[in-house]
Amino acid sequence: MKATVYKGNKTFSVIEKEIEQPVKGEVRIKVAYSGVCGTDVHIYHGMMDKRVKMPLTIGHEMSGTIDAIGEGVTGYSMGDKVVVRPLDDRGVKPSDKGFNHICEDLKFIGIDSPGSMQQYWNVPAFTLHKLKSETDLKLAALVEPLSVAVHDVRMSGLQAGETAVVLGGGPIGLLVAMVAKEAGAQVIVSEVNEKRIAKAKELGLNAVNPTKLDLIEYVKEQTEGRRADVVFEVAGVQPALDVMTEVAGIRGRIVMVAIHGQKKEIDLFKFFWKELKLIGARVYEKEDYEKAITLVTANKLPFTQMITDVQPLSNIQKVFEGIDNNPDGMKVLMNCQL
Amino acid sequence: MKATVYKGNKTFSVIEKEIEQPVKGEVRIKVAYSGVCGTDVHIYHGMMDKRVKMPLTIGHEMSGTIDAIGEGVTGYSMGDKVVVRPLDDRGVKPSDKGFNHICEDLKFIGIDSPGSMQQYWNVPAFTLHKLKSETDLKLAALVEPLSVAVHDVRMSGLQAGETAVVLGGGPIGLLVAMVAKEAGAQVIVSEVNEKRIAKAKELGLNAVNPTKLDLIEYVKEQTEGRRADVVFEVAGVQPALDVMTEVAGIRGRIVMVAIHGQKKEIDLFKFFWKELKLIGARVYEKEDYEKAITLVTANKLPFTQMITDVQPLSNIQKVFEGIDNNPDGMKVLMNCQL
Repeated sequence: MKATVYKGNKTFSVIEKEIEQPVKGEVRIKVAYSGVCGTDVHIYHGMMDKRVKMPLTIGHEMSGTIDAIGEGVTGYSMGDKVVVRPLDDRGVKPSDKGFNHICEDLKFIGIDSPGSMQQYWNVPAFTLHKLKSETDLKLAALVEPLSVAVHDVRMSGLQAGETAVVLGGGPIGLLVAMVAKEAGAQVIVSEVNEKRIAKAKELGLNAVNPTKLDLIEYVKEQTEGRRADVVFEVAGVQPALDVMTEVAGIRGRIVMVAIHGQKKEIDLFKFFWKELKLIGARVYEKEDYEKAITLVTANKLPFTQMITDVQPLSNIQKVFEGIDNNPDGMKVLMNCQL
Repeated sequence: MKATVYKGNKTFSVIEKEIEQPVKGEVRIKVAYSGVCGTDVHIYHGMMDKRVKMPLTIGHEMSGTIDAIGEGVTGYSMGDKVVVRPLDDRGVKPSDKGFNHICEDLKFIGIDSPGSMQQYWNVPAFTLHKLKSETDLKLAALVEPLSVAVHDVRMSGLQAGETAVVLGGGPIGLLVAMVAKEAGAQVIVSEVNEKRIAKAKELGLNAVNPTKLDLIEYVKEQTEGRRADVVFEVAGVQPALDVMTEVAGIRGRIVMVAIHGQKKEIDLFKFFWKELKLIGARVYEKEDYEKAITLVTANKLPFTQMITDVQPLSNIQKVFEGIDNNPDGMKVLMNCQL
């Protein structure tokens, strides 16, 4: 079988290796598609070399079919279409209070252990979600990032009729915007890159450039002065942190989706004054996966347009080399059988 | 009648003036006691000179009795004991979403209009809460700051059996700690001043000095590794902001009670990683006042020990001059009839 490995120094190799039998409690998946995540790009850039044990097969946004079933695994048949929720919570402790998805000793499959950018992949059966047989496996590779968006929106408590501002129009930002719009919210995407703004508009979203208009005034106009009920900070830059406390109205909820590696300056006075909430949101829970699968199965949102390229697995080095120069490239899928 | 006025430049005057009849919709209160709030001290220090129209009678933590009733006011009789909820929300707009207590055009009585540090005080009847006839008017002067604490605890969603860490052992911090303990929480007060620590212990609270022990390790020990379910940031200093994201456990809620005039550095990564919530909390709502009145009427908490001094109104200048040098002085009441 074909597998890819990250070896450090911005380098992937494509290797040949033996197909392994799944051990007790595991299944083997014939991987169909594996999407490239921002985290994978971070790994490629060497930002996570301390955590990643090289050489490592990365990848965690995937779809595939059951190819072999290990001892003790029930409820799955050969050929079943599946996606993996790549959270290994077997180290959970009482002090995690039942929040298994963010337990202190969580292992993320595809970062802390081998991932999906290979032809066949052995995973614990408890990570599986079964798909309907008619599900499009390309769209199914979006279930993982879509679950992030579903989780973010659920954590925000967004209600139909509310206004949500999404700061940052990358892949996760646009998925958050799509899910928020589907939930009945008025959605405004704020993004500085014109190519990404065009992409957002192609997806039917209202997107504006905060360097070309006054975002705060714009949001006030769109809401009869109420400002945003919910703000999603998906940009990860200081100007987004500066504006988030301004565009949020009284009792507004700000969901922190972006990863800020350093401490950042925040206007805490605004939190006090308007009784704002800041809500940290990380990965997803089982119910978020189920909702994302329902959305992908229904296929009423413009998911297809989120997939901007499909490349054979053997092109992995080229894909990662090109990804930073392609801001309106949303989701690149690797075809893991080619 | 006797009234005090703040004139700027750290100066109060005691003046004689005519007693006024209450206008339509107002009552006149014979003020019994008026507590000195941290905000009053800010005003004394000139920090709010832009907002305060001098000369102004300040004061908003008070108790008293109805002394005259204006046209159209029903439900009150002469001699009724009352406290005032000093929020003038008559400028409320639809964009305030029904959160009248923090509406954009809120006027705070005693800052934006004359307050209670005078012998007689005319206020709109809608600000009144009636007390039982047996209520101790000294304790009743604590209802306003106690309502802040009740609001903070309510906003945190604190449940019996949870652990709360209160950062800062000043008057509001200790009231928050008392209310949290009364709600059935395990409470840890973190305070750097030994005199305030001694005061907290006198009130039956568990108080520790984070400069003398490792607060994070201490909280972990006290919670079998869970860390705090709720953190109240009442200190208003950077070390409290640095430690709040550490002592909070998974899905911990951090209530921002302190007023931070400048932008401050916050570890947003911890919000993401542990799915923390930051909850801004300001003043109080009607139900918080009702709960505070119930607590003061029951008088089962050590409220009496929170009142560390009672001074005649005529001593106002001396009281404000001395207050910064008296860290274990909690609440100073002005007797407004002397």
